[in-house]
Amino acid sequence: MAARRMVVIGGDATGMSAASQARRLKKPDELEIVAFERGRFSSYSACGIPYWVGGDVTERDALIARSPEEHRSRDIDLRMRTEAVELDVPGQRVRVREETGGEHWVGYDELVLATGAVPVRPPLPGIDAEGVHGVQTLEDGQRLIDALEQRVESGGAPRAEGGEARRAVVVGAGYIGVEMAEAFVKRGYSVTVLEKGEQPMSTLDPDMGALVHEAMCGLGIETVLGAAVTEIRTDAQGRARAVVTEDAEYPADVVVLGLGVRPATELAREAGLPLGESGGLRTDLAMRVRGHENIWAGGDCVEVLNLVSGRPQHVALGTHANKHGQIIGANIGGGYATFPGVVGTAVSKVCDLEIARTGLLEAQAAAVGLRFESVLIKSTTRAGYYPGTAPIHVKMIAELRSGRLLGVQIVGREHAGKRVDIAAVALHAGMTVEQMTCLDLGYAPPFSPVWDPVLVAARKAAAAVR
Amino acid sequence: MAARRMVVIGGDATGMSAASQARRLKKPDELEIVAFERGRFSSYSACGIPYWVGGDVTERDALIARSPEEHRSRDIDLRMRTEAVELDVPGQRVRVREETGGEHWVGYDELVLATGAVPVRPPLPGIDAEGVHGVQTLEDGQRLIDALEQRVESGGAPRAEGGEARRAVVVGAGYIGVEMAEAFVKRGYSVTVLEKGEQPMSTLDPDMGALVHEAMCGLGIETVLGAAVTEIRTDAQGRARAVVTEDAEYPADVVVLGLGVRPATELAREAGLPLGESGGLRTDLAMRVRGHENIWAGGDCVEVLNLVSGRPQHVALGTHANKHGQIIGANIGGGYATFPGVVGTAVSKVCDLEIARTGLLEAQAAAVGLRFESVLIKSTTRAGYYPGTAPIHVKMIAELRSGRLLGVQIVGREHAGKRVDIAAVALHAGMTVEQMTCLDLGYAPPFSPVWDPVLVAARKAAAAVR
Repeated sequence: MAARRMVVIGGDATGMSAASQARRLKKPDELEIVAFERGRFSSYSACGIPYWVGGDVTERDALIARSPEEHRSRDIDLRMRTEAVELDVPGQRVRVREETGGEHWVGYDELVLATGAVPVRPPLPGIDAEGVHGVQTLEDGQRLIDALEQRVESGGAPRAEGGEARRAVVVGAGYIGVEMAEAFVKRGYSVTVLEKGEQPMSTLDPDMGALVHEAMCGLGIETVLGAAVTEIRTDAQGRARAVVTEDAEYPADVVVLGLGVRPATELAREAGLPLGESGGLRTDLAMRVRGHENIWAGGDCVEVLNLVSGRPQHVALGTHANKHGQIIGANIGGGYATFPGVVGTAVSKVCDLEIARTGLLEAQAAAVGLRFESVLIKSTTRAGYYPGTAPIHVKMIAELRSGRLLGVQIVGREHAGKRVDIAAVALHAGMTVEQMTCLDLGYAPPFSPVWDPVLVAARKAAAAVR
Repeated sequence: MAARRMVVIGGDATGMSAASQARRLKKPDELEIVAFERGRFSSYSACGIPYWVGGDVTERDALIARSPEEHRSRDIDLRMRTEAVELDVPGQRVRVREETGGEHWVGYDELVLATGAVPVRPPLPGIDAEGVHGVQTLEDGQRLIDALEQRVESGGAPRAEGGEARRAVVVGAGYIGVEMAEAFVKRGYSVTVLEKGEQPMSTLDPDMGALVHEAMCGLGIETVLGAAVTEIRTDAQGRARAVVTEDAEYPADVVVLGLGVRPATELAREAGLPLGESGGLRTDLAMRVRGHENIWAGGDCVEVLNLVSGRPQHVALGTHANKHGQIIGANIGGGYATFPGVVGTAVSKVCDLEIARTGLLEAQAAAVGLRFESVLIKSTTRAGYYPGTAPIHVKMIAELRSGRLLGVQIVGREHAGKRVDIAAVALHAGMTVEQMTCLDLGYAPPFSPVWDPVLVAARKAAAAVR
């Protein structure tokens, strides 16, 4: 029997990274590691689901970084289809329910909460009908693909009766929404995205959101703004047939919900663990739940510090989840690691349109009392004369007086999106836009104009602040 | 008559950027601007020449950012085919020789030296033969293209007698050499690159150079190392026919020299202006020649401070040349701007192989007394399951004890090269590799694995330093 037991709740990115990292540092006789996952899959890339649905990824298992068997072969006792249903903090134990329905308590010395997030699912009539899909878990993805392929088998190619393309309606124009729009375009569907806000990508400022809107329409994706869904209309068999908004009705062969996620923290809440305004668990820099020496949390169920605003924030993103897991595992394993916070970086694409952001939007900056100047420039991703050069818009926001970079948003075509990393590092470093004007960035005609678009934006922002 | 006269020597990136920026700030009645260019072209992208030769760029004029006429229409008195032949610093005047041979003195209040660089051209037998080409200026490029196309016209498609592909020999495997190798591959030539050193790309460490060597061979580019050229063999008509090394002879239908450049500072040297060990002019942070209040210099004829090594260095790169010009123009125009230095970033490609570096190589770090750890990782440019994901090797060098990032080198395929910018910004900011492990970089499956390759390298480097 091991000296200590580490219990992990949640067998995905954070949980299994924590388990793996702790196992690298501690042998089984020093540390027993038990992990509970309520689903059928471990350590998978939820972010890859849209590309699986769209056909870019053909095998479900390609999305699985490490199977339960692989974890077990590394002396991690991963129990699938086993749900943690109660947490007894004073007793240092977790009550788990097995697939068979059997329940029992498991004691822990170190506990890792990696319960992830749950999709937002408003209580609308018809929301649970057949044909309405979420795409958060691998099971969700499998159900959607099964449904789409069944339909192809029964109805022939992706055509509805009368030879028209089948119709997909995506509710929500955030990251998941736009990525799913691309997936259905690739499948040959006619796609409508319904967004209740006044722009797609509320993670961008309105002017940049407008560029995305224009580009989505150009890609043949009908994007309806100000479209608040009131009902999913079903047929006599209970199948979803149309999405109804306050103003119109959109016929649908399939409906996908992309309304974002919220932290899955019911278990933690019931156990009295500290939650922030975002609903995410509050942790210290070592990813320890605040006030609890031996309880750790990370990934989509925690809130993190935004280093630019100084405010906590909920960000559900696999890259953070993996970092958190690695940090928790290092700390439990006797090492030392911390997560200082995020700067709010995200990148996505719809077909060949690339969308990225980091730092604060104008509204976010104003909300924390910052005053700023914003500039927007248009340039190209490569030298203007180089084949494949593509447009890129860069918006840059800088604080008044100090000239400190506050945020960057990018909308462009190929090779535009990852340029956001330049600004992300500059935000981590607290650089001013004046300093950024002289950044020694990689230049050659296939890679950049002689003035990289980020430098062009920095020059304009520096002039605006002056 | 204007109150002051600004004289610019050199009508390319630095010179004309300086002129344009000064003109934006000062009206013609405040500042007269006269620029002398000895060639036929102004403000062109020399870096674009390999892509013009290779056919990616079809029109020469696409490489010209601004023609002499355009400059003149902005009240810049640009005189083409006019060479500055003497500089009289005490007399504040420049002697210029016009195309016709006529000479006269022109006085200045502010002088900008933007004389660029000259290609290294060793005094070998046959080096000046017909069929041996440099590719530094637009004139060089035009001569090479004319020669290649004449040959196609006279000899049919790019085939030599006997139906074999025509043979190009490129001397030197640095940036220009590898880019020209790509250009000839695109033209259907059989390409041999002769490099006297033990690796291609001496701007990389040997282990990374070896990766480039392997990849170049995979691309069908014969790359011979340790090949010191002793002679260019010519035929009876004086045409280059083969490149001879100490060990072998390489038949050639065309020979291109890619041996690097040195600062073109004869004029400055003769006038007693301060030159550094690199042969480049020494300037202060405002790009003023040291000790001379009203003489400015920038671009390929100056040396710059390497912010990582603390040493001056000669770097011939269009992106710096443009920045210098803009800074000089701002200062002459009554504004204020400085160039803090470089971190040594460069990016290039050969076909789909991308090569990048920033900071110091191992040997450069050792030469300035730094001790360090190096790590090398292999990853992919996108999520492993995403189509088009490509290999990327990242080498990272970090200082012992402090853990400060010292350098990064990248060899990979599509989307690898520009990741060097992440490290470039981190170098500007003086980040440690430990800090870099938590950088909030853009993640989505089409753009990056969940751990960006740079983060993977940073984790490994941080562990090595610990």
